[in-house]
Amino acid sequence: MENKKENFNEWYNEIVEISGLSDKRYPIKGMNVWLPYGLKAMQNIDGTIRKSVDSREFQEVSFPVLITRDQLSVEFEHVKGFENEVYWVTRGGMDQLDVEMALRPTSEAAMYGMFSLWVRSHADLPLRTYQIVNVYRYETKHTRTFIRIREIHFFEAHTAHDSYEDAERQMEQYLEIWKEISSELCLPYLVNERPEWDKFPGAMYTLAFDTVVPGGRSLQIGTIHEYGTNFSRNYDIKYLKDDGTHEYASQTTFGLSERLLAAVIALHGDDQGLIFPPGIAPVQIIVVPIPSKKVDTGIYASSIVKSLQEAGFRARIDQRENYTPGFKYNEWEMKGVPLRLEVGEKEVDDNFVTASPRTSRKKSKIPLSEIVTAVPQLLAEVKLELTKRSADQFKGLQNHIKKVEDIKKANGIVLAGWCGNKTCAEKIEETYEFGTLGFSRNHKESTKCVICDAEGRIGVFSKSY
Amino acid sequence: MENKKENFNEWYNEIVEISGLSDKRYPIKGMNVWLPYGLKAMQNIDGTIRKSVDSREFQEVSFPVLITRDQLSVEFEHVKGFENEVYWVTRGGMDQLDVEMALRPTSEAAMYGMFSLWVRSHADLPLRTYQIVNVYRYETKHTRTFIRIREIHFFEAHTAHDSYEDAERQMEQYLEIWKEISSELCLPYLVNERPEWDKFPGAMYTLAFDTVVPGGRSLQIGTIHEYGTNFSRNYDIKYLKDDGTHEYASQTTFGLSERLLAAVIALHGDDQGLIFPPGIAPVQIIVVPIPSKKVDTGIYASSIVKSLQEAGFRARIDQRENYTPGFKYNEWEMKGVPLRLEVGEKEVDDNFVTASPRTSRKKSKIPLSEIVTAVPQLLAEVKLELTKRSADQFKGLQNHIKKVEDIKKANGIVLAGWCGNKTCAEKIEETYEFGTLGFSRNHKESTKCVICDAEGRIGVFSKSY
Repeated sequence: MENKKENFNEWYNEIVEISGLSDKRYPIKGMNVWLPYGLKAMQNIDGTIRKSVDSREFQEVSFPVLITRDQLSVEFEHVKGFENEVYWVTRGGMDQLDVEMALRPTSEAAMYGMFSLWVRSHADLPLRTYQIVNVYRYETKHTRTFIRIREIHFFEAHTAHDSYEDAERQMEQYLEIWKEISSELCLPYLVNERPEWDKFPGAMYTLAFDTVVPGGRSLQIGTIHEYGTNFSRNYDIKYLKDDGTHEYASQTTFGLSERLLAAVIALHGDDQGLIFPPGIAPVQIIVVPIPSKKVDTGIYASSIVKSLQEAGFRARIDQRENYTPGFKYNEWEMKGVPLRLEVGEKEVDDNFVTASPRTSRKKSKIPLSEIVTAVPQLLAEVKLELTKRSADQFKGLQNHIKKVEDIKKANGIVLAGWCGNKTCAEKIEETYEFGTLGFSRNHKESTKCVICDAEGRIGVFSKSY
Repeated sequence: MENKKENFNEWYNEIVEISGLSDKRYPIKGMNVWLPYGLKAMQNIDGTIRKSVDSREFQEVSFPVLITRDQLSVEFEHVKGFENEVYWVTRGGMDQLDVEMALRPTSEAAMYGMFSLWVRSHADLPLRTYQIVNVYRYETKHTRTFIRIREIHFFEAHTAHDSYEDAERQMEQYLEIWKEISSELCLPYLVNERPEWDKFPGAMYTLAFDTVVPGGRSLQIGTIHEYGTNFSRNYDIKYLKDDGTHEYASQTTFGLSERLLAAVIALHGDDQGLIFPPGIAPVQIIVVPIPSKKVDTGIYASSIVKSLQEAGFRARIDQRENYTPGFKYNEWEMKGVPLRLEVGEKEVDDNFVTASPRTSRKKSKIPLSEIVTAVPQLLAEVKLELTKRSADQFKGLQNHIKKVEDIKKANGIVLAGWCGNKTCAEKIEETYEFGTLGFSRNHKESTKCVICDAEGRIGVFSKSY
């Protein structure tokens, strides 16, 4: 396998292919096939997201994939922002369509006309909805599995509120939700306020969650947007106030995608392959019986799998013939299963199993009677270790610089004083090819701009995907 | 509410709207919005399907929505069958695309090129995959929610086998799977062998599961198809045999859609509203506390809900203010919740709840200590009653006729002797506007054709959706 530190991009492409997550041989560039193992991982990530939002009374909906040109054109900045990357349906059967329709690039234009029918009074607010659907972008840049693609697996939450203050509270709640999700996935990140010229088309402001892959590039893995009344004014989403007048609703959105899976692969994997956080692992525990002539290790292993499954774990046995235990160990390590249990002659004779967590790869004995309590502890250890490792790695990829020339020495993202002006950001981009992720919300201190020396805050700059 | 027996179509449209399943005010005809309650019901149906196929080692995948013209054109009959109902994407951003792409109307053309890469040897077979995705049809006929639409929520299983015999065994297994699913949904049906001219484009033969709605029209709610090597020859899906030669794989498919939800609505509902089979009900048990000045019925009701949820039931409390218990009873009956539990002063004082199943609507007392055992029994009774009712109703809508003129008196579908020839089927269609569902697999006896008097079997004829 490729060396992850030295050839990150090659390592990433190789592991995505050999671990059975995705097949990119589909004849349309940037549209890949989700293989069973990859799809299960993504569904588990979706499950984590659903759990977080459902517990806060978000309601799941599903809107059509097609959006008429009229719907899309309602908000000017929005349509402007997407016009170069929308796929258009222009024919049905043999008929030229009267009304051209876009494959949704995101769903504001699909949803908000309906919101204007749903929101009548105070009692209908806050409205908290989300959907998990595919969205489409006619991407002309180089594509990369789970990172830059044309068919995007998308979580999008859309809310409407009776005041800007309540929409701002929603933004705070998104940060809580994000904390839950990113912690389940063991992902470190910075919260960056995107600059004016890079915010979501139509938004008042955009906060992005950015992480950094070992190759040094930043990866945007989530965004939340405050729309204020920018969309509601255009889509006519208003409610009747107690005094008989109407008021436009304030709105927010929250977007996530399979980039979460990309980050899991990129941040946690090692030279042996993937490592899945236990909360989203398609297989949490693989049980490998070691063939024996004296005892039936298969039966013993099966009963362990059964009791783990009954206790709610995603456990599986590998009873394939013609493969050695060693081959199986390597394969499941490559596929990132957090915990392996081995069952050989000794284990059967002495009523225990040998456990090997994917992170430490150290072996330990677990008495049979303690399995159902020991397994969650071992999984928790794996989670803790992934969180710690990726946090350390993330720290090592942050470069606080005082002089702009030091960008050249940076491995990873750069944190530097910035006045907030585009001209200074452009100088950094032109000279060093580092784009601007915006002001860091994690660093509140004021400091001077490394370009113009004016008063500023900590800005974040990177080469990004 | 509309009377179901007398005005079935109006009743159906009304109940879909007022129960909050779907909103059809979206600006594109035949593309509706899944509302939270309807989406949850469909997701529960999907869950039932997944459980059945996963237990038989089907693997879930997800293929791109776009299919190039080249991919689609590989199998002639297939593309011919869909050419009038495919949506075409012809532009990306401002660019005219070099290669026009179809929104999948079904996924044979998307999948089978990849199957030809995946299937190499015996060891790769049988290949059993499925996906749950939306498919698209440029439908020109009158649309109807969940029945005839342009964006279809689709379950499609696709398999490949090393022999026709094994593919035929797969067809048998589909019948088993279908039995599980239809039984969970309490749906009666006939298995009909579609006539040559109405089988799936590219299939050797098609078996359809047809039910009948109270209005008398038949509704196709599932299909399974034997492809033989029709597709594998064109998409080059072949495997290496032990003797060194290559053989084309035999293939089958199984398709289901939100018509299952349509059938649940249509067959089980009554003049009070929906009735959901417990296995797929978005809310299985609604607990309504009756306000009291002496005791806190809300706390009592909440603890019941909590214990039911912990026992794995989808239970919910209705604590809305400003609504009377009677209003709530009606609303949840309209929404088809299988079981209601009422909690008033008496209940709290004497440690019981009052239960009312949606089917019988008879009230009974359940001691608090027995709730978690009594509830599944009551739900099982609802399921049994729905199965019985819908079977009786289905029986009443089947008309066995000896003389073709008796079609005029038929309420529902007609079973009549048929020789299997298209000319006789066309006579029935032209004279009585009854289409041909094909030979019934439920009736094996031989009999004479009601048109030409030739030897035949029992054919099924209907007005259909």
